[in-house]
Amino acid sequence: MTDAATAFVPGHITGFFSAHPDDDPTKAGSRGAGVALDSGVTVRLEPGDGVELNGESADIEAVDRVLGALRATARVVVETDLPVSAGFGVSGGAALGTALAANAVFDRGLSENELVTIAHGAEVQAGTGLGDVVAQARGGFPVRLEPGAPAHGAMDGIPAVRDIEYVTFGELSTADVLSDNTDELTAAGQRALSSLVAEPTVETFMEASRRFAREAGLLTPPVEEAIESVADADGEASMAMLGETVFALDGGLSAAGYDATQCAVCLPGAHL
Amino acid sequence: MTDAATAFVPGHITGFFSAHPDDDPTKAGSRGAGVALDSGVTVRLEPGDGVELNGESADIEAVDRVLGALRATARVVVETDLPVSAGFGVSGGAALGTALAANAVFDRGLSENELVTIAHGAEVQAGTGLGDVVAQARGGFPVRLEPGAPAHGAMDGIPAVRDIEYVTFGELSTADVLSDNTDELTAAGQRALSSLVAEPTVETFMEASRRFAREAGLLTPPVEEAIESVADADGEASMAMLGETVFALDGGLSAAGYDATQCAVCLPGAHL
Repeated sequence: MTDAATAFVPGHITGFFSAHPDDDPTKAGSRGAGVALDSGVTVRLEPGDGVELNGESADIEAVDRVLGALRATARVVVETDLPVSAGFGVSGGAALGTALAANAVFDRGLSENELVTIAHGAEVQAGTGLGDVVAQARGGFPVRLEPGAPAHGAMDGIPAVRDIEYVTFGELSTADVLSDNTDELTAAGQRALSSLVAEPTVETFMEASRRFAREAGLLTPPVEEAIESVADADGEASMAMLGETVFALDGGLSAAGYDATQCAVCLPGAHL
Repeated sequence: MTDAATAFVPGHITGFFSAHPDDDPTKAGSRGAGVALDSGVTVRLEPGDGVELNGESADIEAVDRVLGALRATARVVVETDLPVSAGFGVSGGAALGTALAANAVFDRGLSENELVTIAHGAEVQAGTGLGDVVAQARGGFPVRLEPGAPAHGAMDGIPAVRDIEYVTFGELSTADVLSDNTDELTAAGQRALSSLVAEPTVETFMEASRRFAREAGLLTPPVEEAIESVADADGEASMAMLGETVFALDGGLSAAGYDATQCAVCLPGAHL
């Protein structure tokens, strides 16, 4: 390793999803839809070892798995303004950013699909996500029509550009939710996807996401209250999967009196 | 129609390709690879009718076909700094931009894949391109692994960001080249794709593109001279398919003494 490299991966909020486990981590994944954010994860690879997240030593299993798959030894410096463990795809972003940067630094000569596959598989095996990586690789409002890495999955997108706001009340463990029985959640996610495919607009996405959060039983009192407050102020909000986080279109949360963070849709996917 | 809408579509240079005709325009297309440029095509839809290209009335069959497919009547105002009919995907960009803008203005509620499919089919039926539209929808260094619109085709990408220069010596008619016997061209394109898939780097892309241009018999004297001059100055250049245009990495053409236009890779695909 002679050089350093930096990759940027957009944050990603999932609005609804269904879980599709498989023994093959490149086939496992989720269907669903979300939005990529211009606030994201920056990953820098330097000589050394260990993983650092916002200046502190961290343990991100998906990152370790990516380094192992690429036979790479390096120090991985991850920086993000996004809340961690709150539904923004920080672990998936760290994994995908590590794959992109390691490929550049170690001249591994892999394609985008191959790097996305490695990062997706690492995230699935770590149990920390099922669909963020493929969505973060695409950008925009990604729709996951079929689960899995590029060779198996299928993606579409909602053709729209919007400002997004979010507020976070706490953490939810993706691993805990995914290790529970996900039958009901997955049935609700499939219904949400059907309605979005019938009319792939941002408004349908938000409505399907709200219905999903209710039906999947994931709402917490502060999340429910925030979504209702935004609706009362004629805005559109829903819950980020999986975090105790509410996201809204445009200035919806501010209009409802919340101290929200502003960002926008990120059109490019993950890149060096 | 009550509103106006504007879409941006990156320019796209194809480095090599193989032609894959099919009676179904959504299955027809090309395999190959290229680069999306941050210099592109802006398409604005306004009330009225007719198509305007850089301030002059124009006839772009692919645009008319997109409007027909979306049952849309509008004035289509296309603006671009790119040379027309010189291998930059201006007609594909106009078609895809029209699809994105018409979907927004007329609330057609179609997804990105559906809009790309309509624009790709329109471009194929007009005979003006086989692969620019799907590449322009993706951005970056798009690799077309399988021909056709999203439901049939398959894409990958080279994970790289580079500056690009180009110089144009004249026009080539895509329709004329594609209406000739393309067997030899397609065999050369398949060989080029195999070498790029084995090592998906920008350097392999440029080398495979140069070999393709030679083997397909498309080089003209000024194009050949420019590519050689860039190589003599330790740069990397090849020919844009299909135009009498040479493109180079970084400052390759300037270093060889050409008065070249600078741009960069466009990471986001086509968008509103």
